[in-house]
Amino acid sequence: MTQPDVGRIDGLTYPHGVAYMAGRFLPMSEARISVLDWGLLHSDVTYDTVHVWDGKFFRLALHIERFRRSLAKLRLTVPHDDDALRDILVECVRRSGHRNAYVEMLCTRGISPTFSRDPREALNQFVAFAVPFGSVANARQLKEGLHLHLIDSVRRIPPESVDPQIKNYHWLDLVTAQFHGFDAGAETVVIKDMDGNIAEGPGFNIFAVKDGTLYTPERGVLHGITRRTVFDIAAQEGFAVNAGAVNEALLRGADEIFITSTAGGIMPVSRLNDTPVGNGRPGEITQAVFRVYWAWHNDPAYTLAVDYDGDHHAR
Amino acid sequence: MTQPDVGRIDGLTYPHGVAYMAGRFLPMSEARISVLDWGLLHSDVTYDTVHVWDGKFFRLALHIERFRRSLAKLRLTVPHDDDALRDILVECVRRSGHRNAYVEMLCTRGISPTFSRDPREALNQFVAFAVPFGSVANARQLKEGLHLHLIDSVRRIPPESVDPQIKNYHWLDLVTAQFHGFDAGAETVVIKDMDGNIAEGPGFNIFAVKDGTLYTPERGVLHGITRRTVFDIAAQEGFAVNAGAVNEALLRGADEIFITSTAGGIMPVSRLNDTPVGNGRPGEITQAVFRVYWAWHNDPAYTLAVDYDGDHHAR
Repeated sequence: MTQPDVGRIDGLTYPHGVAYMAGRFLPMSEARISVLDWGLLHSDVTYDTVHVWDGKFFRLALHIERFRRSLAKLRLTVPHDDDALRDILVECVRRSGHRNAYVEMLCTRGISPTFSRDPREALNQFVAFAVPFGSVANARQLKEGLHLHLIDSVRRIPPESVDPQIKNYHWLDLVTAQFHGFDAGAETVVIKDMDGNIAEGPGFNIFAVKDGTLYTPERGVLHGITRRTVFDIAAQEGFAVNAGAVNEALLRGADEIFITSTAGGIMPVSRLNDTPVGNGRPGEITQAVFRVYWAWHNDPAYTLAVDYDGDHHAR
Repeated sequence: MTQPDVGRIDGLTYPHGVAYMAGRFLPMSEARISVLDWGLLHSDVTYDTVHVWDGKFFRLALHIERFRRSLAKLRLTVPHDDDALRDILVECVRRSGHRNAYVEMLCTRGISPTFSRDPREALNQFVAFAVPFGSVANARQLKEGLHLHLIDSVRRIPPESVDPQIKNYHWLDLVTAQFHGFDAGAETVVIKDMDGNIAEGPGFNIFAVKDGTLYTPERGVLHGITRRTVFDIAAQEGFAVNAGAVNEALLRGADEIFITSTAGGIMPVSRLNDTPVGNGRPGEITQAVFRVYWAWHNDPAYTLAVDYDGDHHAR
């Protein structure tokens, strides 16, 4: 079940998983889009990702809502209502057998039958897939904290250019920063916005904790579902949250730093560039948020169980 | 020969053409990349496009040189030297039979065998294809001039975020501007940079002509091969060229405006928003540049002929 797939055309190894496209469920090695799709050739595509932990989707409805908002802003159309969308995602997971899964839904502009350059004439394409759960941080980093580098040489694409609330694949700024970070010994990186304030990293939001208050950037970053979950946890636990401009001094002077992503959850940062964060170990508030975050993964209020044995998924 | 292909998986119609990937030549309907390829999921990919007119490549060496520079900046590797790359492109065109072709070479980050998020572990993927020649402007627009709208609501992704000399697919700013322009009756659009100066449009550079001098933006835009060809034509014909910041007043007060792209060449603009440009018809300098541009397509100094009858291409 967990054997990787090998592509018939390219001979490449793909993670075990199941994709849905053009009305069919396919192994990951066969889930391929045309090289002419504007989703590739213009990155004219939006997406959302949700995870399954211990057989249960986490906050799926929020992800579908956000996907709908992204689609509307890009004038993309998916031929499935919310229930049908949910059913497709659940079925991908059920067929994959994965108890811990990373699930992605995406919609590309597609191509027009005449290969016209006019995006209005393209036939939008919906794809979903479920693969093994992946994390920004590995097991050691989750326990001991990540080594994060603040990279100054590249700035996050500004909201004046691309609306960050449209979840998008415009990542060359982040990829470039990753390479600069790797050169400097970083495990991952965070970059600034055009004003010089802290923005986000490759696939995650960032939080600084100072004197018991949580600070996180608000403008020019994706409003992640995990970021929102931290707000909800903070409200329950009585932590103050300040979502607004976070400057470099605040980050460098933080008592604790953690990053948040559907791909990994709440991940502590123990070093910023070459300096320990706080006492160099995951902080107390970070650990408290971490514990509630994972506890909520067993709360039916936040989860949807997959029925792996049924012919169809649980409702 | 010019029948469109219909995809076996998706039933979609693809333009007739030939692609090269994973060591094989394929019809366009079968040229597909994995939905897990970071070229799609992070737009972590670069490309170049070159055209064939009347059976001859135009300035192919310049496009291959630029592709090499883009690859190096993104730390992507293609397993073909320049001669092999040229041979693949020529063979795509030869097999397609197209006398007028749009030819694209691209290299994606690929995927890593473990689906690791580390771009250093991914296996880069090279793809090339030849499809029928396409143009930003249709026949009427080429003759009478395009209706161009300057769009203020979105700004071109700045060079601080993504180096525009890495030819990239980060187009959501341009696509958003296109939709805003279509709403306003535009045929195509041009957008500004973060400083409020004129930048570029979807797939083209822009030139304004004032008092016999050509003005074109320099910073924050792709240095297109057609743009460079205009510089070369201007040098031959004795037109002055000023490559630097172009503000809105200069564009709005221009005697002539034209746009340049491998997809269409030299294309006149006859209306800017709701105002005629000059006398509302393609200007004299625009027409002079246009004539030399197409004349050079018969000059062996700038072209490489495809041998459609041979088993292999012409050298």
